[in-house]
Formats: sequence, structure tokens, C-alpha cells
Amino acid sequence: MAGNSFGTLFKLTTFGESHGRALGGIIDGCPSGIALDLEAIQREMDRRKPGQSAIVTQRKEPDSVEFYSGIFEGKTTGTPIGFAIHNTNQKSKDYGHIKDSYRPSHADYVYDQKYGFRDYRGGGRSSARETACRVVAGAIAKQFLKDVSITAYVSSVGDLKLDKPYQELDFDQIEKNPVRTADADMAIKMEEYIKQIRKEGDTVGGIITCVIQNVPVGLGEPVFDKLHAELGKAMLSINAVKGFEYGSGFAGSEMKGSDHNDQFNQDGSTKTNFSGGIQGGISNGMDIYFNIAFKPVATLIQAYETIDKEGNKVKTQGKGRHDPCVVPRAVPIVEAMAALVLADFVLLNRTIKL
Amino acid sequence: MAGNSFGTLFKLTTFGESHGRALGGIIDGCPSGIALDLEAIQREMDRRKPGQSAIVTQRKEPDSVEFYSGIFEGKTTGTPIGFAIHNTNQKSKDYGHIKDSYRPSHADYVYDQKYGFRDYRGGGRSSARETACRVVAGAIAKQFLKDVSITAYVSSVGDLKLDKPYQELDFDQIEKNPVRTADADMAIKMEEYIKQIRKEGDTVGGIITCVIQNVPVGLGEPVFDKLHAELGKAMLSINAVKGFEYGSGFAGSEMKGSDHNDQFNQDGSTKTNFSGGIQGGISNGMDIYFNIAFKPVATLIQAYETIDKEGNKVKTQGKGRHDPCVVPRAVPIVEAMAALVLADFVLLNRTIKL
Amino acid sequence: MAGNSFGTLFKLTTFGESHGRALGGIIDGCPSGIALDLEAIQREMDRRKPGQSAIVTQRKEPDSVEFYSGIFEGKTTGTPIGFAIHNTNQKSKDYGHIKDSYRPSHADYVYDQKYGFRDYRGGGRSSARETACRVVAGAIAKQFLKDVSITAYVSSVGDLKLDKPYQELDFDQIEKNPVRTADADMAIKMEEYIKQIRKEGDTVGGIITCVIQNVPVGLGEPVFDKLHAELGKAMLSINAVKGFEYGSGFAGSEMKGSDHNDQFNQDGSTKTNFSGGIQGGISNGMDIYFNIAFKPVATLIQAYETIDKEGNKVKTQGKGRHDPCVVPRAVPIVEAMAALVLADFVLLNRTIKL
Amino acid sequence: MAGNSFGTLFKLTTFGESHGRALGGIIDGCPSGIALDLEAIQREMDRRKPGQSAIVTQRKEPDSVEFYSGIFEGKTTGTPIGFAIHNTNQKSKDYGHIKDSYRPSHADYVYDQKYGFRDYRGGGRSSARETACRVVAGAIAKQFLKDVSITAYVSSVGDLKLDKPYQELDFDQIEKNPVRTADADMAIKMEEYIKQIRKEGDTVGGIITCVIQNVPVGLGEPVFDKLHAELGKAMLSINAVKGFEYGSGFAGSEMKGSDHNDQFNQDGSTKTNFSGGIQGGISNGMDIYFNIAFKPVATLIQAYETIDKEGNKVKTQGKGRHDPCVVPRAVPIVEAMAALVLADFVLLNRTIKL
Repeated sequence: MAGNSFGTLFKLTTFGESHGRALGGIIDGCPSGIALDLEAIQREMDRRKPGQSAIVTQRKEPDSVEFYSGIFEGKTTGTPIGFAIHNTNQKSKDYGHIKDSYRPSHADYVYDQKYGFRDYRGGGRSSARETACRVVAGAIAKQFLKDVSITAYVSSVGDLKLDKPYQELDFDQIEKNPVRTADADMAIKMEEYIKQIRKEGDTVGGIITCVIQNVPVGLGEPVFDKLHAELGKAMLSINAVKGFEYGSGFAGSEMKGSDHNDQFNQDGSTKTNFSGGIQGGISNGMDIYFNIAFKPVATLIQAYETIDKEGNKVKTQGKGRHDPCVVPRAVPIVEAMAALVLADFVLLNRTIKL
Repeated sequence: MAGNSFGTLFKLTTFGESHGRALGGIIDGCPSGIALDLEAIQREMDRRKPGQSAIVTQRKEPDSVEFYSGIFEGKTTGTPIGFAIHNTNQKSKDYGHIKDSYRPSHADYVYDQKYGFRDYRGGGRSSARETACRVVAGAIAKQFLKDVSITAYVSSVGDLKLDKPYQELDFDQIEKNPVRTADADMAIKMEEYIKQIRKEGDTVGGIITCVIQNVPVGLGEPVFDKLHAELGKAMLSINAVKGFEYGSGFAGSEMKGSDHNDQFNQDGSTKTNFSGGIQGGISNGMDIYFNIAFKPVATLIQAYETIDKEGNKVKTQGKGRHDPCVVPRAVPIVEAMAALVLADFVLLNRTIKL
Repeated sequence: MAGNSFGTLFKLTTFGESHGRALGGIIDGCPSGIALDLEAIQREMDRRKPGQSAIVTQRKEPDSVEFYSGIFEGKTTGTPIGFAIHNTNQKSKDYGHIKDSYRPSHADYVYDQKYGFRDYRGGGRSSARETACRVVAGAIAKQFLKDVSITAYVSSVGDLKLDKPYQELDFDQIEKNPVRTADADMAIKMEEYIKQIRKEGDTVGGIITCVIQNVPVGLGEPVFDKLHAELGKAMLSINAVKGFEYGSGFAGSEMKGSDHNDQFNQDGSTKTNFSGGIQGGISNGMDIYFNIAFKPVATLIQAYETIDKEGNKVKTQGKGRHDPCVVPRAVPIVEAMAALVLADFVLLNRTIKL
Repeated sequence: MAGNSFGTLFKLTTFGESHGRALGGIIDGCPSGIALDLEAIQREMDRRKPGQSAIVTQRKEPDSVEFYSGIFEGKTTGTPIGFAIHNTNQKSKDYGHIKDSYRPSHADYVYDQKYGFRDYRGGGRSSARETACRVVAGAIAKQFLKDVSITAYVSSVGDLKLDKPYQELDFDQIEKNPVRTADADMAIKMEEYIKQIRKEGDTVGGIITCVIQNVPVGLGEPVFDKLHAELGKAMLSINAVKGFEYGSGFAGSEMKGSDHNDQFNQDGSTKTNFSGGIQGGISNGMDIYFNIAFKPVATLIQAYETIDKEGNKVKTQGKGRHDPCVVPRAVPIVEAMAALVLADFVLLNRTIKL
């Protein structure tokens, strides 16, 4: 419970600072005999990596994964899968200006308070670079999950919002535009808006929606480890996330029970799905869907005033290569965390078959 | 990880069905030497119990707690605190009608699918009656937490919403009205609305806001066990919760970084608090605040059509004594879960002093 | 990890002091649909309870278990099983003499050092009375384990030792003599010896051997959670245990590899079984067998000198009703802990069928 | 709980097969601000590494550790410490002969049964090469533990036994002889005996004794997580271990209480120490000491008959470079595991100061 592990039976533990020698992790509990598609893993990495388009950070990190163990003759052996992603393109000098001062709305101040000092280069352990390891593990979890499909997309950037439910959107669009939204027209508007924001040296928040289909009935434990509680924790653990809602979500709080109740069809499916595929914390076989709110990135390419370790006021200037909006690159991270939650629950429910 | 435990070092494990002999739990890891105020524990129980006002279920359950261990001469001994709440007022006959059929938007169907059969009386383990045990443990956690103050209140019922931030509300009002909202005028409107809803045999959702003050800096672990991720999981594990947001929340996703960043004062506090008292998953000493969305209760006192175990259509009628709106009674549950999360993180951070 | 839970998926958490109101526990993760034989559970309790014969403590405790949850219409529901054993025959006055002084080789001193004070009555949480809860849970685990057979017996009392391997002993004798040894002649000698020891106000140690048969292949995890490592921890957690050895054990350390290696039969079984049914931490389908050493009970009915809380020398006199030798009553506890370890590993290995 | 993690707050997770690309691990929960002596870590590695003397395996593996994270400017940062040990000297061809057959008393058979197939090269995950990672983590735990001293030594090889208690031995001898025993004369006899065994292509078992001094009072949790139960599990998880005893151990089972009880001195220390420094599962400040039995290594350099995957008899010949006796190289592993157990309990007991 030292905080760098996720999951109980399908368990990921990660390490690594953004400007250290390497990041990496151990996936423990992955069942044996899964024929791994290593290219599919790298494709997921490429969806998250910097420099992939004009609207994300222009850092150049290949983010290629080296696997050290747990795979033999192309298949998982059931033993822990150790892996590393070596850092190659850090420009630590970019961070000299924050060595002794605290960037607003970053973790600099609390790390110093909690640990006494910190690896200040690029945010160290608090950098979202850590999520690369989640994507590796999530990509393997996806392969374990077989026919369960997990699809995330950007549903808003600032106040530009997709106004249709997911059933009416075109998922084929998602990987065709750099924003990863599910509508071709909106994609253009969002892209323009992010470019404008970047030009201002500013940043903007957004929302990602995730839809999980083909879920077996029975995943999730009653009481504390409800399926949506674990999904919520997983999503809230991603950098910059401020909120999570599933099914009817916050809007559901305004509804009456007579409108909100999902009536059954004779096969056990429901006519509506305000429940979001989960009842009493357990999957009911309907689609699971949820929204995740991301705040605007805290690093601005602007001059600002802040304090140093001694509490003196200091003037400084944001530098480096940063994302004007985090959601396009966060889409594969959301999917990865969803896959990890589901894989763990599948293993916890020994009678369930994929 | 069988799902009925919460916490790592300050750990609650619970048992009990709504119509079984008793509910109860074990609090393991509570430090020794805490002089327990047992009346304060019962007061928290009374805030949650049925029958406390005209706008909640009229079941009469005294919900008195018996402590079996872990307390000696008025103080905690450091050994596990076992407790039970005996069920006394169950009317199991009220539930004969659901023995073989599935209530819409309840857990009946998924329990049968997952476990093969279920204790159908009153929802069994899926009943919110289980939260009584959380309130017991949370009340003890509150006493351990000393000067940390945790205050929850109802901020909306249906579309009736408090439109002020918590700083401008009167927390003294909360326990003075049966809705547990923080504004005297709105309390009357909400109460009237809930009465109207009950008259219709219908139910309505709502939102609870929780504010935590006097928090030590440094609680929370980076990466997976971020403070807000654990708070989110805790809240999402409460029956009927559909969403969680902290700090700027979903609204933060529409903001620009230049507006959202919290500038430092020279003492390390911040001029604004869009971060919600947490940066990089770690408390920064500012107020922690969050919203929790509750769906409308699924049990309606209306006729409805559903299916039985064999998939046949059946007509039935909602009976029993139910809450038209869950939020007034959920306020102490929210506070209890927040206290459990904080107590656990205090123990995990051995250098932090309360 | 507060220390009062055992197991990951089949998990027991216990509470209770020897002279408090009740002891009890929660079994979380027991699969649903097991038709529980409650009389078989009570029979296990009766094997452990005081007053069962002339060579154990003459305290009279019925040790009857009340189940509060998790069982419906005679079957487990898959939800947590809460239970309590109410204390009825405590003579707390017997313990006034130890309130302020420390009994040698008891936990009095370390509890005071660790927790600041203690419930001194009857040893409080450190009393072996706590093991009653383990027997309840173990009895349920046994029923879950179906055809796996777990048999423990007393193989030595002081220097009286059974000198045959378990295959040459008569397990039918075990419950026919109060010592619970597996040889009728030795039973008489051991019984006489224990009576003699009791007459002297003294106590004596002993060894229990446990044999597990019909074990599925594949239980146990490589590396840290080896099957014998978990069995060892389980046994060492029982009061008064000083040692654990399995298979060839300490004697194996004197052997050569050419004698010790277990040659295969063509069906995968082995001609010898120095491995003790476990290879690389994983069950191989052969019998698992191990020995557990118990020290002599520390409570003597003799005068002795010790120190009080301030470090002053005090003279006192052992009183109360104690066991002259702990092993006869510890036999069902050993079996219970073995059952809990196996049940947990069965659930962890989802492909294994019982 | 997938089995490759050890500890709760000071937690080690490891990966790696003996002939894969690398082994490694993640140490999560190590407190921040510890100035690490990297040479001291390498010295511990050198005590474990192959080829260090004429009586151990002649494989040449440098076993040099690369640290990837969690250390900044020479000090631990409080974030996870990731590390790898790259494999450089594997002769995988040596293992072609076991690809399809099962070596007696190895894990080959059970791995195939449990996982469906296995990385057969050098035993894969079941190889004791995995313990290199434990030594890395243990060396860091030792530095965290400051003045607590942990000393292990070989107390028997076959039937050659040190016949004195640890207080009468010369710990300065341990690192002066290749056997790592604590007596110069016995060291010569043991060394000769191991050379003789190796000449025969055979192997022999042995016993390691470990003594922990300067232990703070109060480590260990009552009931399931007793200090000696965790130490026992830790030792039993080391390859080839068959038994564990602490304090009076198996010999204590023959003693009377009147001889075994440890009388108090006025300062709380005890005149004798049959308890082995632990009472009721909690350290009492006296020396902790325990014995660990190791079986003879299963790999013989002899011809032998066994079965293949289809159950056919096959004749084969042991090859490769193996240890004739495992205990000299296991000494640092025992110390490492003891350090990990203690470090975890120190963090669990927040009021204890080192």
C-alpha cells in the first residue's frame, strides 16, 4: 500500500521519474499462455507519446518498451512481467528555474513538504510521464480481456462539447483526428481552439468519455469495492483529473426515480441504461460508460510570480515543451486504467469466463 | 480484497444483511489510548437512522451499537474494535413480492447472476442499511482525527440548488433542518419538494457537498493512491452515488490554465483554491471540498412491470417504508467515509502529527 | 494489514479479548452456495473448548457460535459471514494480581510497551482464546475444500514421541484419546505424563503433526507466497508455537541430494516424498505434512517473583484454570489454519477445480 | 497478492527469470532522505554472487545493480526505487536436456501443471537467482534500520554442527571463511566436506542461524502478523528452506514451563531468552535469534532417470555449474529478508523511533 501499485490479482507496480534514467513497472498476476501482440502494445504507447501531432507537446520521446521477463516464446508465462522505458530526450536544464521555487498548481510544494526534498527535474515522480507505464500494462490487460471493448474519446475541450450520446457518435473518427474526438466537424473546431490556446501560452481543460462494451455480468464486489468505485479511483488517479461520473452521473441527481429506473427486457437487459451498466456495484452486461473531467495543464508559457522555498516572492517564466490541452494524449491512459480494473475483477471472479 | 474491507492501516471490515440478525464490523488498526466518546458515536448513528424526520423512511430502527472488544476503561486498546447493530424492526414479509422477481435499477438481478441466489429480504447485503457500520467506524475515526473538521451538507435536491460556494453558507443551519442543507430558506423549499415527491410515491436525487478543514499537509500518496482518488472511491462506494468531483471539478474542464492556477501566498497557502486542497494527490493544507451526486432511490411506491427469474413479465407494486430522497440521511455517511480515508492516510504517513 | 486479518480472497478478520463481552470475526470471500453443516462447525469448536477432558483447563465455556449474516436458507450467500462467541464464564477477579505486574514469558510487558496500557484480564487480546474464531472460519473452509482431508495429531509431549511416520499410525485413534495422539499405547503414557505435570503446577510443550491429503496440484505462488511459506506463517501465528518444518524439515539439512531427491513415477507422483508435497512453493499432489513445535504454557500454578510496571520486584502466585499442555486443544486450531491457507490458494488459482 | 511482492509499507516486488534479459524489482515505501551507500549494497550482492569461492557454483555473474529511480543526489526521494540486474553469463544451451523432462525435486513439473508451460532455461522464475533482488532491497532496508544489527552464519553443513550458542561464537570469523560459519576450526572441516561432496557430484543441506540485536521494543502485530510469523514466512520463502524455529524452537517443545519461562530483570530485560526476543508476537528488546533448515540442492552432476512431459521414462545427466551446498551463499539472503521484515514493521509502528 505504498501507493505505486494498482490492482490485487492483476497488479501493476510502477517506478520512475520524468528525468531519471528510466521508468518501468512490473505486471504481476497476468495469467499464463496469452500470446502477446507486442506491436499492439507499442501502438498504444504511440497514442500517448509526445510529439505525435501539432497540438501536443513537441518533446521527442520514442517511448519504446523493453520487456525483461514473464514472456517466453511469445506467450506470457504467468510470472511477473518486468519492463522499462528508458528516458532519452530529457532536457533537464529546462528545469533549473524551478529547483528552488514552486510552480503554482503543481506538486512541487507538497513534495517538498512531504518528503523533505524532491527530484525537481520535470516534476519527477509527479510528472504525467509516469502514465506511460500504465499504458503498457493496460495494453496487456486489453489482450487478456479478449472481446471486451474499451473505447475512450474526447467529448469536450473547454466549452466546445459533443452534444450527442455515445450511441450517435462515430467511433471510427476517433483516431482520424489529433484531438481524438468522435465527430469530424467538432474535431476541426477543437483543434483550432487548442492551437489558439497554445499561441497564447495558455492551456485548457476537457472531458473524456469512455464506453466499455461486451462486459460479462457479475464483475465488481458489493460494498467497498464496487466496480464503479474502482473505476472512479482508477480515473481519479490520472494526472489532472478533477471529476468522475458514470451512467446518469451528476445529471441523474436532478431526476425522479420514475424516470431514472431502467426497466427490464425479458432477457435481463434493460430498456434504458441510466445505471451505466452497473447495479449495486456489479456489472449487469449493459454498456458501461463514464465521463472524466481534466483541469487545464498548470504549466503556462507565460511570465508569473510565485514563491521560493524560503517563502520569498520570485518572478519567473514558464519554459519547456508542454501540452496546451491534456485530453488528446490522455485517451489511451483512460482506456488502459479501465482495462486494468476489469482484468483484476475478472481474476477475482473465478467463475466468470471471458 | 474480498470487498468488504476499507483502508489499509485504519481498516474497517463489515458484515450484515438488512434483514439478517445483525450488522456489524471490525475496526482494525485504531491507535491505542483514544478516550472514546460513545455518545458522540450514537449521535452520528442518529443522524443516519430511519424515522428521524417526516421526510425520511418511517422505519423504526434504534440502530444502537454494541461494542464487543478493543475498548477498556473507556479507551481504545489498539486491538480490533468489534461491534454489532442488531436488527429489530424488519418486516421481511414486505419483501415476499420480490423473492422471485427483479426490481428495476436494484441489485436483485446482478446478485442472482453473480451468486446464484440471494437473501432477497430488503435487498440483503445491497441495502444501504450496511452504511450504518460505516458511520460507527467513521465516528471513531473522527475522534482520532482531533482538530480536522469534516462537514457535509445537502447542496441540491432535484433541481433545487444552493448557488453559493461553501464559504458563504451557514454551517450552523445544517443540523437545524431535516434536509441538512446549509441555508434556512432553501431548507424549507427542499423539504416541501421532498414531501411532494413522497406524496407521488416517487423519489428524487440530490447532491452532497463535503468540506474538510484543518488538514495537515502531506496526506495522500503519489500515483495510484492519490488522496482524491481514495476519497472518490470512498464516496462512489456509497449506495446510489453516480459521480464525484473535487476542487474545480467538471467546471474546471472549461477553464483556462491562466485562470485555474492557484497563486501562492508567502506562507505556502494559495490565493484561490481551484485545486481543492490537493495537489499531485497530496493535501496542501488548504480546505478540501468535493461534490457527490446521488441518483433517485429506485424503490417507488407505485405499480410497475418487471421480470421474474425465468424472464416472464410480472406486474407488481412497490411497498415498504422507503426514503423519497436519500441525501438527508447520507450526510453522516459521507462524513464517515471521509474520516476513514483521512485516518488511514494519517497512519500511513508516520511523520505527520495531528 | 493491521494484523487481525488472514488471507486475501478467503479472508478472516477477528476481534475479541478473553474477558471482554464477545469474540468474533468476519469471513469475507467465502463462495456462495455452500450448504453449511452447522453441527460440524460446533464439533470443531468442541474439540478446542476448555473443560473437554481431565487434562485440559477446567474453565467451562460453551463456545457456541452465533452467525449474524452471510447464510440464507442454510447456504452461504457469498456475502461476509459475521459471527460472535459471547464470553460467559470469565472470572476476571482471578487476574487482579497481574494488573500491575508482568507475568514472565507472557505478552503483558510488550503490550504495555507497545500500546501504553492493556486489558489485563486473562491476557486480553494475547490470550489463546482468540483461536476460537479461527476454528469457526477453518471449519467453514474445510467444508468449502470438500475432499481435501486435513488431519492433525499430537506427535510428542515433552520427550514422549511417536517414533513412526504418519503412514504407519492409526488416525482413527486421534479422537479416541484426550491427548489426540495417533497411537493408543502412547496416548496412555502421554495422558499420565500430563496429569503428573499438572499435579506439579507445571506445564510442558509438545509437537503437532499435520497431514493434508487429496490436494490439487498447483496451489501456492512462486517466490514470496509459496504454499509452505503461508502454511508456516499460519502455524507460527498460533499462540505458543516456536517452530515449523515441512517434508524432510530440519532432518533434511543433514541429507545428501542423492538421497533426498524424490524420483518420479510415470504418473507424475513421486516414489519418496521428502519434498512434503510441495515443490518450488507449489503443491504437487503428494501428501503435504509438517510439524509444529509448541513451547510449554507460561502460566504455572506456582509462586514466582517478577516485576511491576515501575520495575519493582514483586512476589506473586499463579492462579486460575490453565492448560498443563497446550497441544491436545491446539489440534483443531492447526487444522483450521491449514484449511484457511488452502481455501485462499484455491480461490487465487481460478483454473483449479476442487 | 499475485505473489511477487513482500511487505506492506516497505514493499519489494520482483521480476525475472534466471536466463531472461534481466531480473529486477521495485522497492516502494522506502522513506525519503536516506543517504544510500551504494558500495555497501554491492558488497551484499558480492556475498551472494556465484563464483566467489571454490565451494560455490563457478558461474561468473557480476550481479551489478542498475538503479533507475527513487534516488536523487545520493538520497532516497521517497518514491519507488526501480532497479535491474542484467543477465550476462547465461549458458542456456546447458538446459536443452530439461526442456521436455522434469528434474526430480525441482519445480519443473508443478510449473508445467500450473501454468501450462514454462521458461525451462535454468529453472526460470523458480531459480534461486531471483534472490539477488531480495539482497538489493534488503541492503537498503539495512541502511534504513540504522543501529539494528542483523548477523547470519552457517551453523551446520550436513551433520557438521556448531555446538555452541551464538553468544559464544566469534562473529568476526564469518566473512573470513568461504563457508560463512562462525568458528575458524569448523570452517575448515565444513569446507573440506563440501569439496568432497562436490567431487562426488552430490550436494548436501545445512542450517543458517540468524541473530538480530538492538531491536526496538514493540515490533510485530498481535494475532496473525506476529513478528516471528512474518520472519518465518520470509525465511520459508527462500529457495530450498524446509524449516524455521526461533528462540527455544523444537527443543523448547521438550521443556517444562518452570525451566522455559524467562524471568524479568528490573529493567524489563530477561535473565534467560528462550522466548527469542519475541513475546506474544511482539519484540521485547532482547536478541531475536532463529534457525533455518536448507535441504540439499536438487541438481546433481550425476546420471539419473526421470520422466518427460508425456510420462515416458528418460535417462539424463545433470550438467551445468551448480552449488554443492547452498548455505554459504544464502547467508546474505537470510539477512536481507530479516531486514525487510523489520523495516516493514518499523513503518507500521509509527510511534517507534530507530
